[in-house]
Amino acid sequence: MVWQDVQAIRAQAPLVLNITNYVVMNTTANALLAIGASPVMAHAIDEAEDMARIAQALVINIGTLSAPWVESMFKAGRVARERGIGIVLDPVGCGATAYRTRTAQELLREIRPTVVRGNASEIRALFRSGGNTKGVDSRDDPDDVVADAQALARSAGCVVSVSGAVDLITDGERVARVANGHVLMPRVTGMGCTASAITGAFLAVNGDAQAAAANAMAAMGIAGEIAGSTAAGPGSFQMNFLDALYHFDEMQLSTRLKLA
Amino acid sequence: MVWQDVQAIRAQAPLVLNITNYVVMNTTANALLAIGASPVMAHAIDEAEDMARIAQALVINIGTLSAPWVESMFKAGRVARERGIGIVLDPVGCGATAYRTRTAQELLREIRPTVVRGNASEIRALFRSGGNTKGVDSRDDPDDVVADAQALARSAGCVVSVSGAVDLITDGERVARVANGHVLMPRVTGMGCTASAITGAFLAVNGDAQAAAANAMAAMGIAGEIAGSTAAGPGSFQMNFLDALYHFDEMQLSTRLKLA
Amino acid sequence: MVWQDVQAIRAQAPLVLNITNYVVMNTTANALLAIGASPVMAHAIDEAEDMARIAQALVINIGTLSAPWVESMFKAGRVARERGIGIVLDPVGCGATAYRTRTAQELLREIRPTVVRGNASEIRALFRSGGNTKGVDSRDDPDDVVADAQALARSAGCVVSVSGAVDLITDGERVARVANGHVLMPRVTGMGCTASAITGAFLAVNGDAQAAAANAMAAMGIAGEIAGSTAAGPGSFQMNFLDALYHFDEMQLSTRLKLA
Repeated sequence: MVWQDVQAIRAQAPLVLNITNYVVMNTTANALLAIGASPVMAHAIDEAEDMARIAQALVINIGTLSAPWVESMFKAGRVARERGIGIVLDPVGCGATAYRTRTAQELLREIRPTVVRGNASEIRALFRSGGNTKGVDSRDDPDDVVADAQALARSAGCVVSVSGAVDLITDGERVARVANGHVLMPRVTGMGCTASAITGAFLAVNGDAQAAAANAMAAMGIAGEIAGSTAAGPGSFQMNFLDALYHFDEMQLSTRLKLA
Repeated sequence: MVWQDVQAIRAQAPLVLNITNYVVMNTTANALLAIGASPVMAHAIDEAEDMARIAQALVINIGTLSAPWVESMFKAGRVARERGIGIVLDPVGCGATAYRTRTAQELLREIRPTVVRGNASEIRALFRSGGNTKGVDSRDDPDDVVADAQALARSAGCVVSVSGAVDLITDGERVARVANGHVLMPRVTGMGCTASAITGAFLAVNGDAQAAAANAMAAMGIAGEIAGSTAAGPGSFQMNFLDALYHFDEMQLSTRLKLA
Repeated sequence: MVWQDVQAIRAQAPLVLNITNYVVMNTTANALLAIGASPVMAHAIDEAEDMARIAQALVINIGTLSAPWVESMFKAGRVARERGIGIVLDPVGCGATAYRTRTAQELLREIRPTVVRGNASEIRALFRSGGNTKGVDSRDDPDDVVADAQALARSAGCVVSVSGAVDLITDGERVARVANGHVLMPRVTGMGCTASAITGAFLAVNGDAQAAAANAMAAMGIAGEIAGSTAAGPGSFQMNFLDALYHFDEMQLSTRLKLA
């Protein structure tokens, strides 16, 4: 249940270590704070392992990757893997350049994330290794990607969470679909990255990774609907979204949930 | 016409590659999304050329430059130049340090941008190479800089777009002046950088660089006026600004346009 | 008096050089602009000294430190020290990793900041070198840390400014306490970093570092109260906060001030 996880996040304030991209650092830190988690953003090779040792979840996002950052992702990822904490990999722009595709595949193999979260074209590119995306945003129908997502989940031994008009979450067997969300979400940068960060917070409090990933997407979509209902555009949407994450209550989360 | 370009941006969602500064990555990505373009922020040496190969415009901004980023700017710039896509150079803080002035001059020579967009002191410093600015914000009267801007445009073979109370756009011969804008714009960080990013989107859909650059400044100024009309200060201005970019309509863009 | 300093900042628009973390660059630049200062964010080794030569204050924040940035912090810091301009050190996350603790200590020794501003656990870790913080946010009671803050101030020859429910500012002898603030402040990322940046602006116009640091914390807390009074959550708080900094007037600053 989404509400149980939100309550646990608020009560435990899990430390979520983010090695993420420059574009979204502020907004994802704010989203984690708003829902009740404790974000830390750090990327130095000199401290990646130390940070991973005190974190309750690790989120790796390759949105603005470069060689020194990738090295820290591997360092933090190995420690997180040893410690058994939840790891989210967001393969931003996978398929857009060979460097991204290769890095995402290496991280997938080496770190074995608990959840891979991306849009349809990223997930497809990560699985097929030969895909080609337009860039970092995608408006593909996630239903097209079900087979790829399931195959990726099975081969990588992880949960795959595909965001789109209907979010798709699968561990290779079970498939959950979340139909919450708002049309303004793709018009605000970093909503996908925020979904990955929030997934990290849910993993920290819920040992069932498939359920945690689905609950995180439901929380994102419901906050989006609440934010969108009074937004005048993407600027006010972004503000309302943080306010909505902060004010979640049981009634909202149960009555608004749309499982497709 | 501004409205035709906005319609084209919305219809084509051009991919605008930004190698830009840390301060404004989030806000410029959001501005590009709000107006209908498709932003990508990437800077790794390992993918700069690949990204430039799939982009419809390139925006180079030296606001928080450092050696590895500058190397990527050259790599992406050369590919963009070969492909003939529009290139915007924003020489942020040119004149404030020798490193900035030298880097901006080298980029100008090597990459031959389609449009150079800066404030009066940056443009003056870029042209004169001996100027000295206070920093990254300038409240100089852009009319003082007409001669320098025209001379720079002619010598560099580009359009020069100078933001200020009245924006000045020149290809060395034609001079356009846009008097739209709002007093709060200099009180929000990165409005100049946003103007450069938006100029990239306009270049992607309008082959007349002088017109594209002027239309971009008009769009900025009109969104600023709409945002400012209900803003309580720079915080709400920033939110309203994104909402305004998202909601542009033909009536607004034609009735509000102020060519000085 | 807070109002005198705010008036001086508005009149002089001091150039505040920030070598700070990626998460807060945008929001701290906006806070400095909103209160009337002139922010510059720059970190390149090739220009750190040149930037420090034209700045009226320097703010060093290790929130997302890495080796090249630390090198620039030392370079800028030495120039600032020679020139005698105010220097703020924000030892973000000091105690969380050995790398942070060591770097903060080396900066403290080498650069001799005018003001060290952090939360209770950071200040404690910086003084004791053996402390251990949970991460970058802290809800500790600052009163617990009075002795450590005073001892640090005396040993380092600086003012120590500890943010918390009641802020504590001490030069080792005098102790000021500011009880302004709002419960939403710890739920917005980078409010501590913003306090450090704002402290830089106050140092640029007020030669009494103890008074400047206390006035900066009062300004932060009062803006927080004004912002919080109409905020629906952390998203709208952040927007209101910038609006409040921009609209400070003498009445607000005198009637709302709460010295504990």
